[in-house]
Amino acid sequence: MTKTPEDRRLELLQGTLDMLILRTLQWGPQHGHGIGQAIRQQSDELLKVETGSLYPALHRLVKRGWLKAEWGTSEANQRAKYYRLTAAGRAQLLRERDRWEQLVRAIGLVMNPAPGEESRG
Amino acid sequence: MTKTPEDRRLELLQGTLDMLILRTLQWGPQHGHGIGQAIRQQSDELLKVETGSLYPALHRLVKRGWLKAEWGTSEANQRAKYYRLTAAGRAQLLRERDRWEQLVRAIGLVMNPAPGEESRG
Repeated sequence: MTKTPEDRRLELLQGTLDMLILRTLQWGPQHGHGIGQAIRQQSDELLKVETGSLYPALHRLVKRGWLKAEWGTSEANQRAKYYRLTAAGRAQLLRERDRWEQLVRAIGLVMNPAPGEESRG
Repeated sequence: MTKTPEDRRLELLQGTLDMLILRTLQWGPQHGHGIGQAIRQQSDELLKVETGSLYPALHRLVKRGWLKAEWGTSEANQRAKYYRLTAAGRAQLLRERDRWEQLVRAIGLVMNPAPGEESRG
């Protein structure tokens, strides 16, 4: 069976969206739609961020002081809210990246234990 | 700052616990407490599964036909419910592993793009 791009799409796990938004904004300020697009494109079309998750996440990140929102004009010459990373947001991104890498490593230890570690003695 | 083992503990992301339970039971039938212990030990003490998450997950996996529960006697000579993987559970484990690996790869593409892919043209 070949998978269509639609089938290949993955649901993001709770907690990873914030990290991806912060990461995307390291490349410069962006409006909400652009953030969603960037995540989709950078992930080779695997990650699709639903609007219903994206905007609440942006709102939450602004509230925590990790992003700042300001009005600007999009490429299509329309007014749009642009988000940019604050210094606190940069620090948070480092923490979330660290946590994610640890989680991947820890899960890897369970999923693929070193040879000889599987037996129960 | 040195981190205590307690600090290092990671919260599991929603969706990964089922996979870890199925994986743990590949090593043989086990009771709930033993499953939690195995995940903690195999993950180098990084993953701590809360009882409040573990038992509802086991219940859900039995309901979906991926585990079978039966009463047995534990090492401490106490009656305990043992869980074992069904054929459907083995197939589900493969699917979840595949999905997890894809997700890690997709997130990696956003977090660490190939050189030259970061710029916006």
